[in-house]
Parts: sequence; structure tokens; C-alpha cells
Amino acid sequence: MLNDWVGHRILFKVEGFQKTGSFKIRGALNHLLKRKEQGCLPSHVVAFSSGNHAQAVAYAAQLLGIKATICMPSYASTIKQAATKGYGAEIVTFNTRQEAELAVQEYINNGAHFIHPYDDDDIIAGQGTSCYEALGEHYNYDAIFATCGGGGWLSGTYLAKELLSPQSLVIGCEPLNANDAIQALQSGTIVRLSGTPDTVADGARTLSISKRTFSYLKKLDAFYEADEESIGYWTQWLTHLLKITVEPTSCVAMVGAYAWLKQQKKQQTILILLSGGNIAQDTYQTIWRKSDTNIQPSLNAEADVIKQHHCG
Amino acid sequence: MLNDWVGHRILFKVEGFQKTGSFKIRGALNHLLKRKEQGCLPSHVVAFSSGNHAQAVAYAAQLLGIKATICMPSYASTIKQAATKGYGAEIVTFNTRQEAELAVQEYINNGAHFIHPYDDDDIIAGQGTSCYEALGEHYNYDAIFATCGGGGWLSGTYLAKELLSPQSLVIGCEPLNANDAIQALQSGTIVRLSGTPDTVADGARTLSISKRTFSYLKKLDAFYEADEESIGYWTQWLTHLLKITVEPTSCVAMVGAYAWLKQQKKQQTILILLSGGNIAQDTYQTIWRKSDTNIQPSLNAEADVIKQHHCG
Repeated sequence: MLNDWVGHRILFKVEGFQKTGSFKIRGALNHLLKRKEQGCLPSHVVAFSSGNHAQAVAYAAQLLGIKATICMPSYASTIKQAATKGYGAEIVTFNTRQEAELAVQEYINNGAHFIHPYDDDDIIAGQGTSCYEALGEHYNYDAIFATCGGGGWLSGTYLAKELLSPQSLVIGCEPLNANDAIQALQSGTIVRLSGTPDTVADGARTLSISKRTFSYLKKLDAFYEADEESIGYWTQWLTHLLKITVEPTSCVAMVGAYAWLKQQKKQQTILILLSGGNIAQDTYQTIWRKSDTNIQPSLNAEADVIKQHHCG
Repeated sequence: MLNDWVGHRILFKVEGFQKTGSFKIRGALNHLLKRKEQGCLPSHVVAFSSGNHAQAVAYAAQLLGIKATICMPSYASTIKQAATKGYGAEIVTFNTRQEAELAVQEYINNGAHFIHPYDDDDIIAGQGTSCYEALGEHYNYDAIFATCGGGGWLSGTYLAKELLSPQSLVIGCEPLNANDAIQALQSGTIVRLSGTPDTVADGARTLSISKRTFSYLKKLDAFYEADEESIGYWTQWLTHLLKITVEPTSCVAMVGAYAWLKQQKKQQTILILLSGGNIAQDTYQTIWRKSDTNIQPSLNAEADVIKQHHCG
């Protein structure tokens, strides 16, 4: 139905159906399985995360029978904390994201092995397998869209498409209110946000990208930023249309895709990677505060004021 | 995960992924295809519905190239009205459900063919195909659970299991606040509710069952009623666990299943039919008003006070 409305062919890769409810398990498991293969599986891992990376590290550690400690900001939702505990991890909470990140260092000093959410080649390679799988199907995509948090997923996505479909564009999308990657691409230097960004897309609240992910993000074909209203609009519409739980973080990519499609003159086939389906109660409240579905998506509508940024 | 928590094996038939987002398309299409086969396809159909039957009739009529008029109460959600219009139907709205039902008669008098939401053998047979499909898989179910609105789905479910798995129990579940079927089963006579029932399970707001569906409902093995809090509790949990949109109406069946499982001494394998995934914005607001997931489902908990009723 959406395809009829917009006049293009849109396919979704739904990571919400992954174990732990997001693509994050791909990276965490790849990271640990690689160490196991090399005979250096740690006995204790530590990570900081307010959500999906936490669950992923907890579950991967449980699968491999090792201990996991997750440093979380205390505002992380109870359901995500419960899920992380449910996978057998120890949770330590802190007032802010910054404090949680700092606390990790103590665990490292005491011998724990740190799994960074994105600044890690094995995490990047693991996250890239969602795009790799999607490209294994028989479609030729004109463009591939994913949301940017720390940039690990987009980096892996770029590597996967270079391998299997180099002609496809890869386009990043970021919340306007957490646009550290776009600021970095514009200024040419990594930008660190000073406080937790105010966006409903909780998976994209990372404070900065890393040198490693920056080097990949520069190679992307374009970057879009999504305002909060557009994120909410698409979270409602994709939920109604797909009948699955779609995290607002996932819908950041849809905002970018829609803006990009509006600029295309001929019919496009695109892939949108949907990051996950873990949604806390307060996020449901925010998203469904009012009905945003009175205006049906259509590419005949006036072009939205969504800024496109060129990379590199 | 849920299976570990409750110590039983629960399988779900997810009708939200059906075209039009619920099982209702099965009945509507069966009704019309049978008439087409018999060479008496009407040129104009009429139905009353506030939701899923409306979309189903609209879509089935569109597929077969005939006109559809849907009489709806004006409180029907805008997204459901829009979807029904989107399938090409004409919508006429009325202040109450009762007025909408009455208006249908005028269309019938003017030659339109009426498709009743449940009091119809072809509708019942069509709705039964969801259970029929599920039983075609290799599982042996001890019991099958579905929600009761007008009773058409449960009637079809009963017929399907009699055909393929007569040893399985079929158990009906109804909102406490819309318990006309349970009242009928207790009193032995059909009961008609006086006003639109106050339940978040909007698909079960029917005012009464029919003689036809009553005759099947009497044959069921048990009937449970679900209070609003339990419906909300399971809507939150099933959404979190399954990562799909689950209508509160669907979760009425889960409330009954959970109550039934609590009474079982040995491990059971059960099938829960989930009616659909169409959820309006105000229903999201109601369901996610507060977090209900602090208490994890567990059959070690104190038995809930959920009344079981014996049929027939």
C-alpha cells in the first residue's frame, strides 16, 4: 500500500524479530565468537548502554557462558533493564549516560573485557550482516537507508554493500536533535554532544561517533536529518502498515528515505533497515500522544523541509 | 521466553499479518467467493462494523469489483475509517452502533446484499480457516483459545478442530465488560447488551451473539472472562515479547489461556488465535497509560481471580 502511495518500491529488513529485539545481537555475538575462535574468550565482559546493546551483550555472554556487567543510565526503561537482567547480566545504574561510560573504565582496570557499542571492527562486521543478508535476496537496490547512532551499523552496512552491491547508494539518517554525525561531516572533525540528546529515537542518543566509524560515514552517499515530528509521523505509519513494533530509532531511516524519494524522478527500489522493535511504555506514550495519521504519505505532497547533507 | 516463564508450550496464530490486518477477511472473502461460484455475486454489498469487518468487506468487494457501503458508528477511529475508504468502500456514519445496524436495513430494502459479521454460515466457515491452517501444522494442541465477539470466529474454530483435531479443547474468552455470550451460556438464552460495552477490546463490543453462533458456543469446553486490567497487562506483554502489533481484542484470549494454564497440572501445548493488529491511536493511549510489565508472567504467582464458566 505504501508503495502505491509513494510510487516506489520499498523493502524493509526487520531487525525487531532478531533475538533480543534488535540488530545489536549481530555485533555482540560476532565480537565474542571471534574471540572464542581465537582462544581468547574473556570470562567477564562489560558494556555501557541504555538499551539494545545492553540486551545484546547480556544475551551473547549468556550463550557463551560468561559473566556480563552492564553500566546503564538510571533513566533506562524498566522493561529494558528487566530484559537485560533476564539474559543473566549484572546491571549497575548511574545518573547520566556520561557517568555510565566512565564507570566502565573501572571494570576494565579490574580485568573485564570491554565491548564497545560501535567503535570496534568486529562489532561493525557483525552489524553489517543484516544488510549482507538482505542483499543476498534477489533485489537490486538503488539505495539503502539506515539510522546513525554511533555509526557502527552504517559502517557495516557500507562494507556489506561494497561487497555485494557496490552500485547501491548507502544513505545515513540521524535525528536533528542528536546530529553529531552530521555536524562532524560538515565540520570535518568529530563533534561530541554535551548532554543526552532530546530525541524519542533512543537508539540514536549517542554523544559522538568515533574515528573508526567517521572514516566509513565519510564514504556514504548522503545523510539526512529527521525532526521529532517526522520521526513520530513515520513511527505511527509504519506501525499501522507493517503491523510490527517499530522503534522510533528505526523510523529515522524512513524519514530520510522519504525525503530522498521525493527528489527522485524515476521509480526507485530501496532497502530500509529497521533497527529494532524494543519500545518502552513512556516512548509509546510520546509517540501516540496524538494521531499523526490524518495526512497519508504521498510524494505529491509539498516537499518536506528536511535537509540533505553530502558526505565526505 | 514466555514458555519458560509459564512452563507450557504456547503457539500463536497471528492474524494481524492477514491482508486488512485481521482474520475478518477470511469470512468476507469466503462469503463473496461462494456467491461468485454460484453465479449470484451481488453488485452492491452493505455491512455494519466499527472496525475489522468493515475493512474486510471493503477489501473483498474491491477484489471482486463490486460496490460496498459500510455503516459505522461515528466514534470508529479515523485510521479504521481511512483504511476502509482506502479499500474503495463508501462509509456512512451514525451516532451509535445501534443506529448503524438499523440503517443497514434501508440499504437491504434498496437491493444491497447484506454481509453479517458473524450470523452467517459462510462467514463462520471462512473465519474457521485460521484454525484450520494452524492445525495443518504438525502440532497436537491440548487446547485452542480465541476471543468471542459475535461468536463467528469461535464457531468456525470449533468446526475446524472437529474436522482435524477433535481431541483438542476449544475455549472461548470474552471481556467481562462485554460478556453477553457468558450471560447467554449461563441463562440458556441469548442476552442483548443495552449499550456499547466499555471495553478496550473493541473487536468484542458486539451487543449479542446469534442463535447460530450460540449453538456452536454451547459446544465449547469452557469460557473465560477477562477484566480490563488483565487485557491491558497481556497487550503490553505480548507486544513486548512478540514484537508485533497485538489488538487488545486478541489479548482477551491470552487472559483466558493464562487462567486455564494455571489450573493444569501437566505441561500443555496450546494454540492462541490472535485476531488482528489494527490499533487506533486512542487505544494505544489507553493501553500504554502506565507500565504493566513490572510483574512478569509466571504460573507460580497467586491464582488470578478470573472466573471460568462451563458451556452447554
